[in-house]
Order: sequence, then structure tokens, then C-alpha cells
Amino acid sequence: MKSIVLFGHGARDARWREPFDRLAALWKAQHPNTPVTLAFLEMMQPSLEEAIASQVFAGANEVVIVPIFFGQGGHLRNDFPVLLNACREKFPGLTLSTTPAVGEDDAVLQAIVDFSARAL
Amino acid sequence: MKSIVLFGHGARDARWREPFDRLAALWKAQHPNTPVTLAFLEMMQPSLEEAIASQVFAGANEVVIVPIFFGQGGHLRNDFPVLLNACREKFPGLTLSTTPAVGEDDAVLQAIVDFSARAL
Repeated sequence: MKSIVLFGHGARDARWREPFDRLAALWKAQHPNTPVTLAFLEMMQPSLEEAIASQVFAGANEVVIVPIFFGQGGHLRNDFPVLLNACREKFPGLTLSTTPAVGEDDAVLQAIVDFSARAL
Repeated sequence: MKSIVLFGHGARDARWREPFDRLAALWKAQHPNTPVTLAFLEMMQPSLEEAIASQVFAGANEVVIVPIFFGQGGHLRNDFPVLLNACREKFPGLTLSTTPAVGEDDAVLQAIVDFSARAL
């Protein structure tokens, strides 16, 4: 079974995660056969390792991680590979892959441009 | 003249801003009559006040700020209003408005879901 992790930064303010909860709800409604779990780099739970552990426990043998970040700075270039390697060591039988950050996607950027244009 | 500011967090790694530069380029190509400037909360230039000053200097009498953030946490709920008030005091003749964070927009979230689905 394949599953997906939406991986965000995290924040102190619990309301920060509202768009992430909405993302997960949209995914569940549209892709009910591919389980989704949120995970956070810091200040929010679950961690990436906890999220992957819960998916493995639920039967996943393949997990795709989508970084919900705009830019690829230190968090994605330095912190994320360390976490990823730790997960690969902890779950050696799991196929673990990642996508680019969502901010790399032309359609995501276009949606932001369109949102901005509607605001004028 | 109306102009737009795309306001992001900023990061130490200069490569982090690539999607923001692409966003501004997309905007310029599609909305050439509405000047766009990037601005950053921290670690990158220009600041919000610098960006708005440059637009006023270029002739803007109305500026719309679009927060390029997913969630609305402490940065948008606490830091941003302080910056905004400072700009309003500094440019009293300017009409200054803001949109919600782009992560609040259903179409942006849908674009992220679709990007994730293509990655599976």
C-alpha cells in the first residue's frame, strides 16, 4: 500500500496548521485509496518519523513525502535529508521517496498569481 | 496607479527565493499594467516598508499586499499588522490593503493536491 505525507514547517500558533488540515481533508476526499498523514519539521506533531511509523503500522510499504514549502532553503536542503536518512535507516523495507517542494510547481505558482489577480 | 507586493518570510539561503522570483516574473508577464515588488519579513531584502516606498516613488497610490504564506501564525497575526501600521503612518496618502494568506485559497490548496497526486 502506498501512502503520502504532507510535510510542513510547523509553528507555535496552532491556527497556523489550518491550511494543512484542509489540504489533508481535500486529499482524503479526492484520493481515498491513498492514506495521507501530516508531518512537521518543528513545533508541531507528528514528526516526519512519527508520521511514517504510523503509516508503516497501518500497512504502507511505499511512502511519498511532499514538502509543503515555497522555497528550498536550509530546511529542505540540510535538515530534511538528515530526517529522511534517519527514516530510511529505521524503516529499511519501506520505499521512501520525495517530491520537490510545492513552490517549485508551475501550477501552484499560477494559482497564487490568479489568487493575487482576483484580489486587485 | 495600483501596484502589488508579494510578501514572503525570507531565509538565509539565497536559493530559497527562487519561487518568489518566478512568481514575480509570472505576474509581470500576465499583468504588465500592475507593477509587482517582492518583500520579505526577515533575512532578505527589501523589507515591506522598502518595497512600498519604491512603489510610491514609482507613482503608486494604491498597494495591495499578498502574504505568500501557507498558515496564519504569529508572523501574520502579530508581526505583519505592526509592519502594516508603520507603513500606513509613513505613507498616509497611500491606500494600503492586504489579502488573506495564499494558503487560505481553495484553488492554491487544490493545485497542491493535484501536484501531490501527479507525484504518486
